[in-house]
Amino acid sequence: MKLMETGVLYNPQSGKVSGKNVSKSSRQLKHMEGYYEDTEAFRSMDPETPVYEVLMHAQEEGNEGGLLFGTSYLFPGKVGNEYFMTKGHFHEIKNRAEYYWGIQGEGALVLMDEKGEAKVEKVTQGSLHYIPGHIAHRLVNTSDSMLVVGACWPSDAGHDYGTIEENGFSVRVKEEDGKPVVK
Amino acid sequence: MKLMETGVLYNPQSGKVSGKNVSKSSRQLKHMEGYYEDTEAFRSMDPETPVYEVLMHAQEEGNEGGLLFGTSYLFPGKVGNEYFMTKGHFHEIKNRAEYYWGIQGEGALVLMDEKGEAKVEKVTQGSLHYIPGHIAHRLVNTSDSMLVVGACWPSDAGHDYGTIEENGFSVRVKEEDGKPVVK
Repeated sequence: MKLMETGVLYNPQSGKVSGKNVSKSSRQLKHMEGYYEDTEAFRSMDPETPVYEVLMHAQEEGNEGGLLFGTSYLFPGKVGNEYFMTKGHFHEIKNRAEYYWGIQGEGALVLMDEKGEAKVEKVTQGSLHYIPGHIAHRLVNTSDSMLVVGACWPSDAGHDYGTIEENGFSVRVKEEDGKPVVK
Repeated sequence: MKLMETGVLYNPQSGKVSGKNVSKSSRQLKHMEGYYEDTEAFRSMDPETPVYEVLMHAQEEGNEGGLLFGTSYLFPGKVGNEYFMTKGHFHEIKNRAEYYWGIQGEGALVLMDEKGEAKVEKVTQGSLHYIPGHIAHRLVNTSDSMLVVGACWPSDAGHDYGTIEENGFSVRVKEEDGKPVVK
């Protein structure tokens, strides 16, 4: 019997996930209509501007007990004075948790419970973030370079984007005097 | 509202997990009586010889939907010509999966299903390993330096060490002519 290669690579330094069962998804500004407060600034920008990309390894998707693994790349940028961010979501199966870990860049992780109570964690290279079940989560890039964040979450967690699309988060992360502030 | 530190650090380069809710466990040779084939060689060695250590972050343990995160450090060494290895286990909740990723060193990941069918994956810096449910898993250090492997798994997975302690794995990884071979 031989030692076999898995055919899947994960570079801990860059976060790159590649090989078998790896897919990539991309979000541009056009996918984020209504998410940013400054709608005038939003409309003045190129709708094809990339906001984030996700590399995901999925050997089993949807089944109970399984896991998924991936890396998010959030581009630097602002709409008005509001930093580029991911859409953010609850999990469809509410009690499913998720781990995030900061690989490159600086940012914020906005967390909000079902009552709208929010807190914001600082994401840096080397920070580990545990997102318990029942908590909506959104990444924000507060720096001038790419924010790279690793993630692992249950295969059956699913994404409930609708609740956030309708009601938003209770806080926004904006630039004020060159620094990130939570509003 | 301020950006808060999580108080937990994960260094993607070294695998070190530190801070709040992080614990460390250690296994020495004395904990692994009966695991290695060459019992004579085993008895001739110092029972306090370290075999592996695990750093684990656990914000929620035992609950459905939660996750755990950690790093395993497997020391280099052999008992006779059999490489140092972890005990290996099935999960108590059988269908729980796990992710492993190679951070430093070279080794092998022995996987075995409930019928005793085994396969062995090569672990290197940058390899990603998906361990589906119902699959026993054991790490083996086939190199002269520390094998460092990151991991994420469900909070309620639990460890069934007993099945392996009784029946072992159907294969062993040994050194032959200076190279790892699966027997």
